[in-house]
Amino acid sequence: MSQSSDPRGELRPIRLGMVGGGQGAFIGAVHRIAARLDGQYELVAGALSSDAARALASGAELGIGAARCYSDYRDMARAEAARPDGIEAVAIVTPNHLHHPVACAFIDAGIHVICDKPLTTTLADALDLRQRAAARGVRFALTHNYSAYPLIRAARAMVAAGQLGSVRIVQVEYAQDWLAADLEATGHVNGHKQAAWRTDPALAGPAGCLGDIGTHAAQLAEYVSGLSPAEISADCTTFVPGRRVDDHVQVQLRYAQGARGLLWASQVACGEENHLRLRVYGTQAAIHWDQDLPNELTWHPAGEPARRLTRGMASLPDVAAAATRTPPGHPEGYLEAFGNLYRDFAEDLRDARAGRLTPARVPGLDDGVRSLAFVEAVLASSRANAAWTTLSVPA
Amino acid sequence: MSQSSDPRGELRPIRLGMVGGGQGAFIGAVHRIAARLDGQYELVAGALSSDAARALASGAELGIGAARCYSDYRDMARAEAARPDGIEAVAIVTPNHLHHPVACAFIDAGIHVICDKPLTTTLADALDLRQRAAARGVRFALTHNYSAYPLIRAARAMVAAGQLGSVRIVQVEYAQDWLAADLEATGHVNGHKQAAWRTDPALAGPAGCLGDIGTHAAQLAEYVSGLSPAEISADCTTFVPGRRVDDHVQVQLRYAQGARGLLWASQVACGEENHLRLRVYGTQAAIHWDQDLPNELTWHPAGEPARRLTRGMASLPDVAAAATRTPPGHPEGYLEAFGNLYRDFAEDLRDARAGRLTPARVPGLDDGVRSLAFVEAVLASSRANAAWTTLSVPA
Amino acid sequence: MSQSSDPRGELRPIRLGMVGGGQGAFIGAVHRIAARLDGQYELVAGALSSDAARALASGAELGIGAARCYSDYRDMARAEAARPDGIEAVAIVTPNHLHHPVACAFIDAGIHVICDKPLTTTLADALDLRQRAAARGVRFALTHNYSAYPLIRAARAMVAAGQLGSVRIVQVEYAQDWLAADLEATGHVNGHKQAAWRTDPALAGPAGCLGDIGTHAAQLAEYVSGLSPAEISADCTTFVPGRRVDDHVQVQLRYAQGARGLLWASQVACGEENHLRLRVYGTQAAIHWDQDLPNELTWHPAGEPARRLTRGMASLPDVAAAATRTPPGHPEGYLEAFGNLYRDFAEDLRDARAGRLTPARVPGLDDGVRSLAFVEAVLASSRANAAWTTLSVPA
Amino acid sequence: MSQSSDPRGELRPIRLGMVGGGQGAFIGAVHRIAARLDGQYELVAGALSSDAARALASGAELGIGAARCYSDYRDMARAEAARPDGIEAVAIVTPNHLHHPVACAFIDAGIHVICDKPLTTTLADALDLRQRAAARGVRFALTHNYSAYPLIRAARAMVAAGQLGSVRIVQVEYAQDWLAADLEATGHVNGHKQAAWRTDPALAGPAGCLGDIGTHAAQLAEYVSGLSPAEISADCTTFVPGRRVDDHVQVQLRYAQGARGLLWASQVACGEENHLRLRVYGTQAAIHWDQDLPNELTWHPAGEPARRLTRGMASLPDVAAAATRTPPGHPEGYLEAFGNLYRDFAEDLRDARAGRLTPARVPGLDDGVRSLAFVEAVLASSRANAAWTTLSVPA
Repeated sequence: MSQSSDPRGELRPIRLGMVGGGQGAFIGAVHRIAARLDGQYELVAGALSSDAARALASGAELGIGAARCYSDYRDMARAEAARPDGIEAVAIVTPNHLHHPVACAFIDAGIHVICDKPLTTTLADALDLRQRAAARGVRFALTHNYSAYPLIRAARAMVAAGQLGSVRIVQVEYAQDWLAADLEATGHVNGHKQAAWRTDPALAGPAGCLGDIGTHAAQLAEYVSGLSPAEISADCTTFVPGRRVDDHVQVQLRYAQGARGLLWASQVACGEENHLRLRVYGTQAAIHWDQDLPNELTWHPAGEPARRLTRGMASLPDVAAAATRTPPGHPEGYLEAFGNLYRDFAEDLRDARAGRLTPARVPGLDDGVRSLAFVEAVLASSRANAAWTTLSVPA
Repeated sequence: MSQSSDPRGELRPIRLGMVGGGQGAFIGAVHRIAARLDGQYELVAGALSSDAARALASGAELGIGAARCYSDYRDMARAEAARPDGIEAVAIVTPNHLHHPVACAFIDAGIHVICDKPLTTTLADALDLRQRAAARGVRFALTHNYSAYPLIRAARAMVAAGQLGSVRIVQVEYAQDWLAADLEATGHVNGHKQAAWRTDPALAGPAGCLGDIGTHAAQLAEYVSGLSPAEISADCTTFVPGRRVDDHVQVQLRYAQGARGLLWASQVACGEENHLRLRVYGTQAAIHWDQDLPNELTWHPAGEPARRLTRGMASLPDVAAAATRTPPGHPEGYLEAFGNLYRDFAEDLRDARAGRLTPARVPGLDDGVRSLAFVEAVLASSRANAAWTTLSVPA
Repeated sequence: MSQSSDPRGELRPIRLGMVGGGQGAFIGAVHRIAARLDGQYELVAGALSSDAARALASGAELGIGAARCYSDYRDMARAEAARPDGIEAVAIVTPNHLHHPVACAFIDAGIHVICDKPLTTTLADALDLRQRAAARGVRFALTHNYSAYPLIRAARAMVAAGQLGSVRIVQVEYAQDWLAADLEATGHVNGHKQAAWRTDPALAGPAGCLGDIGTHAAQLAEYVSGLSPAEISADCTTFVPGRRVDDHVQVQLRYAQGARGLLWASQVACGEENHLRLRVYGTQAAIHWDQDLPNELTWHPAGEPARRLTRGMASLPDVAAAATRTPPGHPEGYLEAFGNLYRDFAEDLRDARAGRLTPARVPGLDDGVRSLAFVEAVLASSRANAAWTTLSVPA
Repeated sequence: MSQSSDPRGELRPIRLGMVGGGQGAFIGAVHRIAARLDGQYELVAGALSSDAARALASGAELGIGAARCYSDYRDMARAEAARPDGIEAVAIVTPNHLHHPVACAFIDAGIHVICDKPLTTTLADALDLRQRAAARGVRFALTHNYSAYPLIRAARAMVAAGQLGSVRIVQVEYAQDWLAADLEATGHVNGHKQAAWRTDPALAGPAGCLGDIGTHAAQLAEYVSGLSPAEISADCTTFVPGRRVDDHVQVQLRYAQGARGLLWASQVACGEENHLRLRVYGTQAAIHWDQDLPNELTWHPAGEPARRLTRGMASLPDVAAAATRTPPGHPEGYLEAFGNLYRDFAEDLRDARAGRLTPARVPGLDDGVRSLAFVEAVLASSRANAAWTTLSVPA
């Protein structure tokens, strides 16, 4: 591909590999669409499955040459690092328990990483990854995709600019129903690919609903409010008989400067599809956002009528405009938000190509460490009958 | 008024008195509209103000003869009890601290009572009223008006009929913003009639937001779900500097059979007018109701599309039809719901006239006792740093 | 009832009679609630049914003495006019074909009138009533109740104040589904009290859906926009086999200063309960109102975020505040709006009592004349294959 | 790119070219995202601008080699047709007046076409394209993208399956506000790239709002209802002073079997961003869809509660599932719908590669012909003062 006006090749798409995400996977397909959306990546290698035949077939469907269809991620890291045209970044879309070993393999090979959340299954592993990445100088993106919605970025900017005054109340909830049925008792859990691994502590880690969606809720609340809870009181529940992880989580939040909050995440809330909702109330105004209406942000200035801010509107903060592809009234959604992370991380990677040391544009290892600190605090509090537990995040 | 076809006079409107509710009051006017809506009451006496001139002027506006405009509720109870055409029931719409003494005066005089909530400022007082009313044989209505919305009654009937399966999750919230500003620091609180007494512990009792709207939320959740929390963990906060009562309440709820819940009430949530919302999730279905859309109930059967049930719809439980005055699409609201309590209590009072011993049709002293038990448990838990506190309601 | 502070008796409730509205009627009950809501009327006489026994029984239920339960409205007009304590106003809630003769009887007896819409079944009759009322000096209220919603009054005031700039587009629709089924073919129409008369041209007049709800839509659009169409092109349809009146109406509207509009009314729109919706777009802003959310008015200033104006909000025009009984967030609805007409007309009647010549506070005979002119123009246009037809309203 | 498991190369991406869509264009970027979303196309050539330098710069940004950056579309058609690795399809995203000549050039060169709507500026040109494409055997996609929303496809399938019974009423509207300001009078129109050409009859054709969005509304209504109007009565208006094309269109629709409808399109409706809305009412049920909530379809079965059908729901027709990429609750939008057209057309093109004669999966020349017949009928009716005009579509 000729790039006459781009002699340094900076505009050249990023060469991307993927671990996990073979036929039938959910999140792997999402990552691939996100990577394609803006033409900033080229998927050229994969360890899409640990089954060699399936890895090959999955790769063929995606136009990956057979030579770069690996069945072992360690081989892939080694081989790609050795190629002159080897991948520059890898997307890790495996079940949670593999995030750490896979990320280690690629970090150690000097390859940048895009990793699905939660970062790891333990805080210790998260800290280990952070240390390794720093040592090796690789860039790391953690796909807290909800924080990449244009209006979420607008909300964060508005809070940061003081438009809410001092934050008093944070209400965040993430409700689903796809694990509400008695899957374990009926044995159906084994035939349900997503449910099978997400309810298995060996694959998902000790946190079920908490790790899967509670971490998204916590990250979103923190991303927008700019506040981290100082202490939490958590009550984790397992409603479905035979389930080995939590499927419902309630957390009271207390913030250092006095704000209060509630976090609710559930995978057994009948009728809720993927309902993520955030409300932040300050002394001067409040904002509401709901993933069912992702192109709107409701802005409630004290004593004035509520305003409906819409994606693409000229008066929004610049960060929102930068994260939008279509004019107001042309709805964008989940994939576009996910694509924003990929597009922004491509900028990070181009900086890395050029040796520029720039601050990360997307959530990364610090967010992952914070998430795992949150997970461990919630589990500890819940085991202690919801005792207040200090949330301390290793610096 | 001739009632030729009603020789026993049963259809004759109830003779009603009112204590509190003079010029400028809010809830008194609401009670009067509720009483008028169905023509079941005739307001004939009042101690509308403790200021004699104001009591008289307020009464004149309402067509109450000067002879029955009292400035002392004790005089009123005595005098009305002595008249052959004396009031049959009294509506108590004073600040909270007067509910107990006023109710005592009328109960002891054998006059039935309609009392605004919260019933009293202490559980002991609530128990005292319950004991007195039982001893004297008077009927008692407590205006938990939100439970009288037709679709709330439908929801309760649906839960009771098992249509949700087993209840797992209760989410209830009641958010307002009218106390969000720094009223105390600026001194404006004194010029704001509602704020002045509702933030004064001597008048409102020890519970601020908790007593004013938290009790509504708790009653509504219990009314619909049919469940009382077994233990609670509560965090009450006072956000506004100088305020003497709580203005924000968060409560974790645990139910005997394993259900979980969250209750949130706030009077400092910028942009929220009077936003009461209830969601109950069971194993088979969920229901959502929101006072901003009071003519709708969303019904989420597991694995099926959500349905929008509307007030007046033929397929609703009979209790909903009985509480509705207009066909679907002709919106009813807060006053109609309030009026339902008055209309139903008129039936109770006609039963009393006729000596019929019937079960109460509206919330009453048991609800009041439960509310005060809840208030005291929440305050105790909050003082103990949100320790789990058993909610025991005296039988 | 003593009125010591009101020596002239001005505050005394209006003595009201009713024609129509016996047991089982719909709109009669609505009028009675509206009359009771603010305590401004006392229902003391009625010709509730032309069947004497039913008239008596219906009256007894409402506390009307047997002596004032008439079975002939002419007798009632005569007798009440002759009593010293006779009714001061009559509410006419009969089928349409009786509006004219009943109104004549009471007007001629010098009794003020509240009449359900449409005023009459012909323009000639409407003009006759207007002439008679003027000659006799009686006040006349026509219950275009939708125009009495607080936010509709706010909208009208905002348009009149120029906040929309110049009006360009009017979109109004009123959709129902209660006549969608094949009632005529199955014979069920006869057993359906409302359907029976509303689809019978002898009782409803020549306009079916057009007269029943199309007139409401036209009045609402005109009330808010301040504009009357100059010419219209109408297509009336009868969808249900065997039906004798229109059940679906589409009208193109052209206004004198160039604005355009569409009016749609239907009683066969599956799933629509009583869905009245108005949108007015000007050069500077637009407003939207929807009866399903009657406590909100959406305000779209050009180039700015939409604002949600809520009933009770301090910044609304005064006319809205005057038409509201409860604070923001305490939903009001159809009955409260209807009650606003009654309350405002009580003011008109008190002016009449005192001999004050004041402008009418509510819709009246001019609105009725305009409605019938609209009905006749629509029917004429539709008969002429939707030819443009000038809408000329007799002055 | 090796395709070992795909010996025939069928899975190989389609080689795509683009005419128009240089730097700063809107719809060109949308087409490119749509083409990238599923990895089915590779953009390898373009006449992105008629300015050679700009064409080259625009191409470089998109990774198109300089050799295949053309400044004249005729050169491009010729050269690409001659290359062994020439483009297989071209996307035409120019102003309307160029659609016909550009399409001719590529059709005549045997290259398949994806063309933005409206197909042409005259019916004669549309018929010409249809004849040429048939003669040359090329496939042709017309991007009526709104018809590719998953729930629109579900709606169409439900209507076709008789779930609405017989259709009675079609209500479609498409409202925007981006041309509401006085652009012409102020001269701002020239500095507004989109407005400049879309309001210039030489570039946009004789239909302004009508051609730009009215055609979308008409196509959507027809696509879902399965009905074409038999005759129409149209009133086109130009509100903004100095504007040379219509900016507001109202159309009454009559269908052969008796159904009725209204179509409204406007580009001067203050506060409307890109508000496309469709409602279809039948004898048994109705459906509503609104682009502001594109992941929902409201289903109103007669006499039952409305149901909220959501994208991804298992019970939807298969065509909806085939057009969806993410599970329920993960919102998709405009770009995903647009991408569906591209993905489906890739299937058409693979059939063409393999010589398979299959029916088109996406809107094409017949839709384009119907749209232009509609445009010409509307313009004719409007010129004749909204006279009823037969809509005859050349077979």
